[in-house]
Amino acid sequence: MNTSLVCRLLGRVALLVGVSMLFSLPWGFTWRDDGLHVETRGVVGLSLSVLISFCVAGLLSWLGRGETGRLYRKEAMAVVGLCWMLATVLGALPFLFSGTSRLAVRDQSGTISDRVPMSFADAIFESASGFSTTGATVIGDLEDRELVPRCILFWRSSTHFLGGLGIIVLFVAILGQGSAGKTLMRSEMPGPSQQGMRARMQHTAWVFTAIYLILNAVLCLLLVLEGMGWFDAICHAFGTLATGGFSTYNASLGHFDSPSIEFTVTVFMILAGSNFALLYAVMAGRWGDLWRDLEWRTYIVVIFGVTALVVAFGLWHDDFVDGTNALAQPEEFFRAIRFGLFQVVSIMTTTGFGTHDFDGWNSFGRGVLFLLMFVGGCAGSTGGGLKVIRHILFLKILKREIERSFRPSVVRPLRIGDQAVNDPEMYRGILVYFSMILVIFVFSWMALVTIEPDSTWNDQEIKNKLIDSASGIAATLNNIGPGLGIVGATQNYAHFTSVAKLLFAWLMMLGRLEIFVVLVLFSPRFWRSA
Amino acid sequence: MNTSLVCRLLGRVALLVGVSMLFSLPWGFTWRDDGLHVETRGVVGLSLSVLISFCVAGLLSWLGRGETGRLYRKEAMAVVGLCWMLATVLGALPFLFSGTSRLAVRDQSGTISDRVPMSFADAIFESASGFSTTGATVIGDLEDRELVPRCILFWRSSTHFLGGLGIIVLFVAILGQGSAGKTLMRSEMPGPSQQGMRARMQHTAWVFTAIYLILNAVLCLLLVLEGMGWFDAICHAFGTLATGGFSTYNASLGHFDSPSIEFTVTVFMILAGSNFALLYAVMAGRWGDLWRDLEWRTYIVVIFGVTALVVAFGLWHDDFVDGTNALAQPEEFFRAIRFGLFQVVSIMTTTGFGTHDFDGWNSFGRGVLFLLMFVGGCAGSTGGGLKVIRHILFLKILKREIERSFRPSVVRPLRIGDQAVNDPEMYRGILVYFSMILVIFVFSWMALVTIEPDSTWNDQEIKNKLIDSASGIAATLNNIGPGLGIVGATQNYAHFTSVAKLLFAWLMMLGRLEIFVVLVLFSPRFWRSA
Repeated sequence: MNTSLVCRLLGRVALLVGVSMLFSLPWGFTWRDDGLHVETRGVVGLSLSVLISFCVAGLLSWLGRGETGRLYRKEAMAVVGLCWMLATVLGALPFLFSGTSRLAVRDQSGTISDRVPMSFADAIFESASGFSTTGATVIGDLEDRELVPRCILFWRSSTHFLGGLGIIVLFVAILGQGSAGKTLMRSEMPGPSQQGMRARMQHTAWVFTAIYLILNAVLCLLLVLEGMGWFDAICHAFGTLATGGFSTYNASLGHFDSPSIEFTVTVFMILAGSNFALLYAVMAGRWGDLWRDLEWRTYIVVIFGVTALVVAFGLWHDDFVDGTNALAQPEEFFRAIRFGLFQVVSIMTTTGFGTHDFDGWNSFGRGVLFLLMFVGGCAGSTGGGLKVIRHILFLKILKREIERSFRPSVVRPLRIGDQAVNDPEMYRGILVYFSMILVIFVFSWMALVTIEPDSTWNDQEIKNKLIDSASGIAATLNNIGPGLGIVGATQNYAHFTSVAKLLFAWLMMLGRLEIFVVLVLFSPRFWRSA
Repeated sequence: MNTSLVCRLLGRVALLVGVSMLFSLPWGFTWRDDGLHVETRGVVGLSLSVLISFCVAGLLSWLGRGETGRLYRKEAMAVVGLCWMLATVLGALPFLFSGTSRLAVRDQSGTISDRVPMSFADAIFESASGFSTTGATVIGDLEDRELVPRCILFWRSSTHFLGGLGIIVLFVAILGQGSAGKTLMRSEMPGPSQQGMRARMQHTAWVFTAIYLILNAVLCLLLVLEGMGWFDAICHAFGTLATGGFSTYNASLGHFDSPSIEFTVTVFMILAGSNFALLYAVMAGRWGDLWRDLEWRTYIVVIFGVTALVVAFGLWHDDFVDGTNALAQPEEFFRAIRFGLFQVVSIMTTTGFGTHDFDGWNSFGRGVLFLLMFVGGCAGSTGGGLKVIRHILFLKILKREIERSFRPSVVRPLRIGDQAVNDPEMYRGILVYFSMILVIFVFSWMALVTIEPDSTWNDQEIKNKLIDSASGIAATLNNIGPGLGIVGATQNYAHFTSVAKLLFAWLMMLGRLEIFVVLVLFSPRFWRSA
């Protein structure tokens, strides 16, 4: 293991995180009629965190001084895994130092009588949720500036921005690590390995970054035009394009109750879940590439197919009835499409914004959303989950295996669109990836059911412990955010014990980095020099 | 496709089923003080079924007359799949012709005012459940001879006996098909392919049959000594050794409320879930083979490990408190071990007998039982599920894949005990099998949630539709029987719609024949001559 190189690279990540924090500082100052208001706790907390990040960066750079070596596969995996962990820990500092509250007890007059500050596990959870673009939160009340300062809220959304882009992509694009960058990016980019993407890594990183920045800027402008303030618009753009899902309101995007805002965000969620290489082709005028791409076609068909089913079942079960116009049939129909489409896109792209409490839907709707969590966006997007292309390949492989069972000698090549894919490594890789997700899901589920006491649920809810736990695991492992029941659309993860929160944080990292990079860090053989 | 050979073999299966039915006939006649009692409906129904089976046998043999060809892999798969289907259909006839009721409405005096006879789907479900050794039932009241004649009840348990042995094993042992038999058995024997077992197929089939018969006889005698009547003893022996789970009482084995009977059955369930080749070695005096066998060792460790956990969590949550002696701590402890061990063994070996309503257990206990359903017995046993050895190999493969991710060039061979296993076919086979189970489970679950109306559940239960459906799919696909909630230990499958019952029947067959043999029958390419 080339320790000094690893240290030096980690140092740059600490620097990057520290610099990013600086951008949150201005939001701590507000100019009102009666003068300048300063969020003292927030500003002090952030400044302290910046300071610590710079110190860590300095220390690591000093440790990593000396000769430059080559970055081999092992070092690359170590760097990627460790740098996300480092970013998570540093990103948690502002929550801790600012004394951000996750819960407040109010007396009858509405003034706060007691407040529960975020614990270490809370802060790690929130930071991991941000960087992994999950969007699950432990903060029960986001809207009171006494509890959560504005600059801290901005930092919270900034972690989405950084996580969505991928720390390493940023790294390669800005700092240009040459062959090292190539190896690093290969370990971090979501989806099965992309041919053609490997050729010119730095160019790819720039394209990815440029598209990401442009989409963020466009969405932000559109949201402002639709009536949002700049602060909310930037935060929600960050949450959308990173397919994260942190909002600045307790009711998530439903707070605005605006069909036009929801529609705009829906479109951008779909874009954020698309392969960025494909978006680049479209920007270059090659619109035909979009529909010729099997993965994108499937992605769109699944979104609209599932929406149709969810709307149909929802109407049948009166899930979208608004108390005031239960008889107004056409209105109910539009409500169903509006909320159904938004929720399906939000879950499928692993964003996790909410406009309607889908936990109150019928079992079919809830079951479909649960399964959608495992689908996720396209490869090469900011979305989480298993990625559409993996599902396509998985089903094709199994179909071929059925044929192979009665005709072992005839091996038909797999086809994706016009191309024959016959890479046995890829074949095995897909099967192994699904198996890994299965095993991690099952073990984490059982671990959560075991360690989490029944008292987290109330007497009516306790019967749902199994399904709630399963949905919580699925929602964090696939980087969605909200699940079912006590982690549902209108709930949060605050009730859980610290151990469970750290388990969730670990799962979010596993999901974002596609398992192996995180798992190897826990393998003793990995660290043994060989 | 060599159609005439397939027909001839199918004809013999029909003959075999017909002959087996004859053994149920005597139970329709009872000698009491006031003379001979005949269960008219039962006897007529059975006789009619025997007649039809013989006719079908004759017809198929006539269709299949002519030259003998060789049995290739494709034909073997077709024969195995079709013969189980044929047996299931023929086995359903006695339920239909005898007008067996699945439900009775009683008035206040307790006399039956109305009865619901079994529908076609009910009968197919019951027959598939018997032959696949699942033990799930749609019959709500087993104890009233007006509703379910004794001879029909005996036939119901006989299907377990036939299914457990494997119709094909019987076939090879009795009818000696030579190379045809070899190909057939390879398609039917549960578990990944066993080396050494292939060498002398007919000998193996005989050994398997002999062990099976001896164990049945011994258990039957023990049960009689412990106070059971011959009828009950035979039926419960059939249910135990086939790892089926059909009982002759509504309260299953809990009816007898006898610790000694439960203990005896527990031991025989463990034996039935063990590899029969291993039992043969033990009978030949090679006791050491038992503990040297990695699969058997794991099987035993899992059983007792999980029991310890279930007992501990159950005591903590007061799951085993008997209303009368809630304070008697030692008694509660023994109850916990008695019921905990029995239930863990019953689910793990995929038998499905019940002595305690585990649906009332805490979430950990219910979750563990749900997962145990997928483990199953050892390869080469009568148990269902995925088999212990597949899980061992699966985890070993994934562990190796983690290492391969950072050290692609070093390929360590897989080890089972002292042996290195390096067959890439086996490697792929394990991954594909788990993937298949995953896909079938997920799709069937969603299908069940979609087709089954919410009215099957009552208002309190409807929140559990997702988990109940999942457990029903798991319990039938893995050939267990009872699941959670409305298909729990004290419930049955009668409430479901006919389509759902046929789906369950299909899953039971899929599980019993380890997927491929059944799936290929639905593949158009399979039937195209090539």
